[in-house]
Amino acid sequence: MLPGTTIPSGRDPAEGARATGASGSTASGRRIDLNADLGESFGAYRLGADEALLAVVSSANVACGFHASDPRVMERTVALCKAHGVAVGAHPGFPDLVGFGRRSLAASPSEVRADVIYQVGALRAFCDAHGVPLQHVKPHGALYNQACRDPALAEAVAAAVAAVDRRLLLYALPGSELAKAGERAGLTVKREGFADRGYRQDGSLVPRGEPGAIVEDPEEAGRRAARMVCEGRVTTREGADIAVAVDTICLHGDNPEALAIARAVRAHLAAAGVTVAAFSAPTST
Amino acid sequence: MLPGTTIPSGRDPAEGARATGASGSTASGRRIDLNADLGESFGAYRLGADEALLAVVSSANVACGFHASDPRVMERTVALCKAHGVAVGAHPGFPDLVGFGRRSLAASPSEVRADVIYQVGALRAFCDAHGVPLQHVKPHGALYNQACRDPALAEAVAAAVAAVDRRLLLYALPGSELAKAGERAGLTVKREGFADRGYRQDGSLVPRGEPGAIVEDPEEAGRRAARMVCEGRVTTREGADIAVAVDTICLHGDNPEALAIARAVRAHLAAAGVTVAAFSAPTST
Amino acid sequence: MLPGTTIPSGRDPAEGARATGASGSTASGRRIDLNADLGESFGAYRLGADEALLAVVSSANVACGFHASDPRVMERTVALCKAHGVAVGAHPGFPDLVGFGRRSLAASPSEVRADVIYQVGALRAFCDAHGVPLQHVKPHGALYNQACRDPALAEAVAAAVAAVDRRLLLYALPGSELAKAGERAGLTVKREGFADRGYRQDGSLVPRGEPGAIVEDPEEAGRRAARMVCEGRVTTREGADIAVAVDTICLHGDNPEALAIARAVRAHLAAAGVTVAAFSAPTST
Amino acid sequence: MLPGTTIPSGRDPAEGARATGASGSTASGRRIDLNADLGESFGAYRLGADEALLAVVSSANVACGFHASDPRVMERTVALCKAHGVAVGAHPGFPDLVGFGRRSLAASPSEVRADVIYQVGALRAFCDAHGVPLQHVKPHGALYNQACRDPALAEAVAAAVAAVDRRLLLYALPGSELAKAGERAGLTVKREGFADRGYRQDGSLVPRGEPGAIVEDPEEAGRRAARMVCEGRVTTREGADIAVAVDTICLHGDNPEALAIARAVRAHLAAAGVTVAAFSAPTST
Repeated sequence: MLPGTTIPSGRDPAEGARATGASGSTASGRRIDLNADLGESFGAYRLGADEALLAVVSSANVACGFHASDPRVMERTVALCKAHGVAVGAHPGFPDLVGFGRRSLAASPSEVRADVIYQVGALRAFCDAHGVPLQHVKPHGALYNQACRDPALAEAVAAAVAAVDRRLLLYALPGSELAKAGERAGLTVKREGFADRGYRQDGSLVPRGEPGAIVEDPEEAGRRAARMVCEGRVTTREGADIAVAVDTICLHGDNPEALAIARAVRAHLAAAGVTVAAFSAPTST
Repeated sequence: MLPGTTIPSGRDPAEGARATGASGSTASGRRIDLNADLGESFGAYRLGADEALLAVVSSANVACGFHASDPRVMERTVALCKAHGVAVGAHPGFPDLVGFGRRSLAASPSEVRADVIYQVGALRAFCDAHGVPLQHVKPHGALYNQACRDPALAEAVAAAVAAVDRRLLLYALPGSELAKAGERAGLTVKREGFADRGYRQDGSLVPRGEPGAIVEDPEEAGRRAARMVCEGRVTTREGADIAVAVDTICLHGDNPEALAIARAVRAHLAAAGVTVAAFSAPTST
Repeated sequence: MLPGTTIPSGRDPAEGARATGASGSTASGRRIDLNADLGESFGAYRLGADEALLAVVSSANVACGFHASDPRVMERTVALCKAHGVAVGAHPGFPDLVGFGRRSLAASPSEVRADVIYQVGALRAFCDAHGVPLQHVKPHGALYNQACRDPALAEAVAAAVAAVDRRLLLYALPGSELAKAGERAGLTVKREGFADRGYRQDGSLVPRGEPGAIVEDPEEAGRRAARMVCEGRVTTREGADIAVAVDTICLHGDNPEALAIARAVRAHLAAAGVTVAAFSAPTST
Repeated sequence: MLPGTTIPSGRDPAEGARATGASGSTASGRRIDLNADLGESFGAYRLGADEALLAVVSSANVACGFHASDPRVMERTVALCKAHGVAVGAHPGFPDLVGFGRRSLAASPSEVRADVIYQVGALRAFCDAHGVPLQHVKPHGALYNQACRDPALAEAVAAAVAAVDRRLLLYALPGSELAKAGERAGLTVKREGFADRGYRQDGSLVPRGEPGAIVEDPEEAGRRAARMVCEGRVTTREGADIAVAVDTICLHGDNPEALAIARAVRAHLAAAGVTVAAFSAPTST
């Protein structure tokens, strides 16, 4: 069910990409996964544009109740994903509902490990209840950021995912500590690109708050996404051209602008003949 | 892995027991499961006598983070159960940590269903991580009580367990709505008896607070447990003798008196030649 | 600062109202308080039409973090109320964020007492920080409903309010256990009417779900509100005419229809020459 | 009620102490406050040695429900403090119950401000209910540590305390950002010393985990405390002798060793003729 995609384990993901070509290529043409965060409502609170995003993405990162969501929202979201043919992934976060999991927390590796096992298991049970596979795990917010930088947390996340099910895919920033830890843990790591974020010379993202951090024009974001997938390249903030290897592109839907970008990315990929598909099923369309 | 034990589906569990004999009989002699609530610590807070109980019981009802416990406590508890050869069960409760899940809550069936799926899934992931099977589900506190009386909640619990994995055993008070719903859902229901509680003529428990609700003498509790298992009978508060069929006996460890009862029950069962064993493994000793 | 309004303590609030006339009369004309629930957002989640309601009501029931809201939302809401000249009240609820405090909970009187003291104190601190008085307390959702029916919970709520500050007003359904307990505790009770709810012959509300429970037409709701205030009378579901005494009318803003009713009530009151004003300040307009 | 103690505002607290002498001196002799964290139980969970500590300390830092405690525990703790003549302080922490408020959290100043106002207000309401003054505020755990180092968080805490009631005392590490921010906010800052911690040459504490961080011998801790109070001096890890000015000494009770130290400190102070007394009342003994 889950492909045994070989991930280049070179220390420089951009180099790896250049050597092997964009990993999304198939016999019949280019192929890419589009992912977005879904199921972030909670109790009486509604958040996000889930219905709209489900028509755009092939994979969903479903919140697991720590930084957002609750059990009923999770069940509803899994059912919606199934109905739309969108693959389900777990989106574990820090236990910080009031902060939406966006605040750095000095959690220990053993706390992170247990929190991830717990959340992944909870979401997987809803997948079982609805007869859909759990495809991947992508940490949320501050947990994602900390795990991308901190080797001990990265290893805790990767070990947690592997402990639940070694076939689960791990979505991670290419070249990050999280990606490396995932590979060391024997997981299949899917490299994540960002259509609406600026890149630096070394392939890392321009930090939010700095000039060039955000690509605001939907058309430009769409063009960048299509080029990442088809050419394996992206233009940096400084105007240089670097290699970037992506298996999945992250989209957002928490505001009308983000949704416009998501749709533009999908449209540009279609125009370029790229198939949008999750990893756990042939194609979503 | 899990035995396909056939549960008599008569409306009167005592009648059913009389017809079939105590369900714990084996070729080599009597056999019973002993269960207790474990893993109820939380963060910096320690609660319960887990180490002591692990030497007495064959199955553990492990709290899942809603009424007690947290992910690290859950992982530690599963590991402890494995080390002691004690079978692991999920002990889902209401989302009421400050009330320890003991307060009745007007949760809807869909809320109960989702809360149970969530908690069972979370605990099962720790079982997977440690290579032990998840044996059973037993609702906790107010959720147990409400599900024993309310058919809609009972059905929600049973459907949730079946949705996660139809092979999971459901522990329930014999004759209760929960037991009936479990059977309707196709689950194997394990009938629970209480060594330290008084019984009424109809086989139900004397409500807490009434005279005769609690059996305080460890020796008497031990004798009652052994007689339940070996003869399928118990003396009621009024002094009559009724049939009672039990597959598992619930013990407590939250105070020294409870622990003394637990040990006395185990000793009396041993003296009577009864094997204490969980359902998911041959014997625990 | 808070007026020592005498509340008729007759067991039938409608009778009391008939004898004394509508309590909202002043030397210069009719006067009524309009209240609504505000500040129900939480973390990244937005809920309610606070800005719109602030232009309509004279008093706000501000959520205190148990069933909704968080400390930053509370501070923001108090500041907004101050800016709009709207009096601030505490809106304590059950500790059930995922259920929005709408689910009945078997909390003990001592739990309710402590939960109310805690929440009222927390909100009062924001009032102190912004130099506005805390005017009143109105329990939320299931806590309000249970306290209106259960004398022990009613007494716990009233004792909690009195323990924090005996000058705090208590908003309650006339004739309810909560209103009675408030009077016994020496609090000034403000009788609450409902413009958008049907009444029964005994002055109680038609339960939600029954025919005639909800008044959906904004104009009709407006007429009913104006008549309650000016004539102290309301037409029951059965078409009879009963006396009803109100000091404050509850409005809602959680959907466009509710907001339309709120605005219609305000407009009808203005057309009838009724002054809309809180109790803690001369007038809000 | 609260004394207008002048706090030397020199940048080096040790210098200030040398110039003015130990601030605890009175006409009738030396005087010091002893404080400890109390009321850290939660729901069914018991934590700490409150009864034992109440016989030793003059001031209690009472947990406010975010990192520990719940409303009923808070009410019980305030009542216990009153019964023992121990002054009550608020001990606000991060909203991290599972982590006991010990994990650093990247909370913004506005989040910290609101969280502190909320918690201080909640505890003050229990003080009002029991007719005792709220004496002081001392941040807990990671919030204390971060506020001692980070000027923006320090200012947020100090502004929050001042916003609730400018007469509240702020307990802080001398020379810390928190102490400075408290003084700038017009609060009376009480300088806190540690009997069981090692000091460095600059008057800061030896970080936990390093050699010399903890003074384990109760007698030595008692001698150090008495010398701090009577001579305003302490021996550093390196063996040097430095000035240290303390208004209050922090004790612990979370294990038998800590309790032994607390008692030894009290005994040594008594032997040295030092009066143990809170700031809000003449003396506790």
